Amino acid sequence: MSKEYRVAVAGATGAVGRAMRSILAERDFPVKELVALATAKSAGMHLDYRGEEVICQELTPESFRGIDLALFSAGGGTSLKYAPMAREAGCVVVDNSSAWRMEPDVPLVVPEVNPDDVNWHKGIIANPNCSTIQMVVVMKPLHDEAKITRVVVSTYQAVSGTGAKAINELMQQTGRLLAGDAPEINVYPHQIAFNCLPQIDVFLEDGYTKEEQKMVDETKKIMGDNSIAVSATCVRVPVQNGHSEAINLQFARPLSVERARELLAEAPGVKVVDDPANKVYPMPIEASGQDDTYVGRIRRDPTAENALNLWVVADNLRKGAALNAVQIAELLVQRDLIRVPR
Amino acid sequence: MSKEYRVAVAGATGAVGRAMRSILAERDFPVKELVALATAKSAGMHLDYRGEEVICQELTPESFRGIDLALFSAGGGTSLKYAPMAREAGCVVVDNSSAWRMEPDVPLVVPEVNPDDVNWHKGIIANPNCSTIQMVVVMKPLHDEAKITRVVVSTYQAVSGTGAKAINELMQQTGRLLAGDAPEINVYPHQIAFNCLPQIDVFLEDGYTKEEQKMVDETKKIMGDNSIAVSATCVRVPVQNGHSEAINLQFARPLSVERARELLAEAPGVKVVDDPANKVYPMPIEASGQDDTYVGRIRRDPTAENALNLWVVADNLRKGAALNAVQIAELLVQRDLIRVPR
Repeated sequence: MSKEYRVAVAGATGAVGRAMRSILAERDFPVKELVALATAKSAGMHLDYRGEEVICQELTPESFRGIDLALFSAGGGTSLKYAPMAREAGCVVVDNSSAWRMEPDVPLVVPEVNPDDVNWHKGIIANPNCSTIQMVVVMKPLHDEAKITRVVVSTYQAVSGTGAKAINELMQQTGRLLAGDAPEINVYPHQIAFNCLPQIDVFLEDGYTKEEQKMVDETKKIMGDNSIAVSATCVRVPVQNGHSEAINLQFARPLSVERARELLAEAPGVKVVDDPANKVYPMPIEASGQDDTYVGRIRRDPTAENALNLWVVADNLRKGAALNAVQIAELLVQRDLIRVPR
Repeated sequence: MSKEYRVAVAGATGAVGRAMRSILAERDFPVKELVALATAKSAGMHLDYRGEEVICQELTPESFRGIDLALFSAGGGTSLKYAPMAREAGCVVVDNSSAWRMEPDVPLVVPEVNPDDVNWHKGIIANPNCSTIQMVVVMKPLHDEAKITRVVVSTYQAVSGTGAKAINELMQQTGRLLAGDAPEINVYPHQIAFNCLPQIDVFLEDGYTKEEQKMVDETKKIMGDNSIAVSATCVRVPVQNGHSEAINLQFARPLSVERARELLAEAPGVKVVDDPANKVYPMPIEASGQDDTYVGRIRRDPTAENALNLWVVADNLRKGAALNAVQIAELLVQRDLIRVPR
């Protein structure tokens, strides 16, 4: 019989934690036991895993004894504190927060792009930012063919990326506005219903947000190419789930629309949805709940020498977070890497 | 006493027509008589102008007898048919449709950018596309200083640009979805509530939409510079009113963020709203109902030699349509150009 693992999900009650539980089940991940961890407030909650009840436990320094693999999605502070404890206890961590992503000895992995980076893990493997994941999945086959030199990307990001409370806030505000009442503003700095917020995460000194900077830095690390220049504008839109991106790519070498479409059609994890004559293109309401990254509106940009425009949509809770983390875990299983190197 | 004019609004009952009526009143345009024109279906409707009732008349070939100035916002087909008839009757037309914009003998005018183009009108002056207007208002002072060579723009366009029926559709779909019912889809090819549609207007052969092509062509004509290359992705978002744009500009000469901010602060019709430390940036819910074009998130783009990123928001019904048309009419009054040259 093949090996099975004791798997913990830290942040099990959140939007991503919930998706992690269901994706582990859907994909028949070899789970011997599933341990659901969350804050003291959520401890005792009855959660579902494969139709069976799992009782949520409080995340403590002792939580990782006897655990082989932990998927973290409980925020940067929690990861910073508990991931090293988990590793100390011999548990391999796949971390969805931004806490460890840019650490030189932590691989930052998108399985379709840089699977071999899992090989040098030292106990923690980082899951990239949602906006970055769907962009690099599409960039990879095009970069291998014609070398991407510059990317200008504008995002249209769903509220689910902020968590379950943000989905509730969008619904609450929308309902109140439809009824003619003033919306309550708690999660975002401004009303998100029927609005666009050109701010995701906090602002840095240079006027960019941390989210925008993540797209710059993480792309280079995942693609293993520091020469790829990324200019990003990240915007929150009143969509429940599914991030969209308008991506302008410049290449070192010529790349026709036809060849790009061919490469993308063959690329793992990518689905080409591009039939403008029939008004067919990727949309968040269709990508939501799906595993693939959808690409459409593939067209030549005549304003630069070798350039293309693309429209890319993916489920930010799945490919942008939970699915990618489980795919990393699957890679670790396949390569028998669920152990902390000493 | 200064001159007063008999003014017709064709398409008086639509979202833009309504805005035209209220802006003419707000700005004390010298109206001797206001004639409201619309389809036979709307004829007889009681409309408001300066608190007085105006009875809507059916638009016919005879509607323009004795009219000095007509503001058209009744769709391309109506403009194509009736604008020449109006001109024939001695009435100057300011047309909000796309029908006449690219005609070589029709000026395409944004008063802050190319006011002098009204001087050579031959009876029809075109009002540009909403997305283009707010972009060129911001580009103009920067172009004069450092010469814009390439623009990559992604839009976040409100439904009001499609008309009153699209606002109703967004509200109807949103309400039904909140109630757990299936949304009805009539105006757009797909659900717009909680979604992003990467299609505005129809698709052309090269994979771009007509809206995207308008931004390319109209920018060159208004700016009077065919060397400005524009690459556009136009997207409809579930916002009632107010278009947003993420604009990446490349310049021939260096332009610092500080200097750009200074130029924009002095530019007519532009308001700099850019204080990220206090989470202050332009947003559609705040630009809606306002006359200025708002610019913020002004930052250097280090991925190209002389490049900046901007976030620009304006009321697409006002500056993007009705206000700009009335401003053109005001220019005509100032220059005593409300007459059809023979």
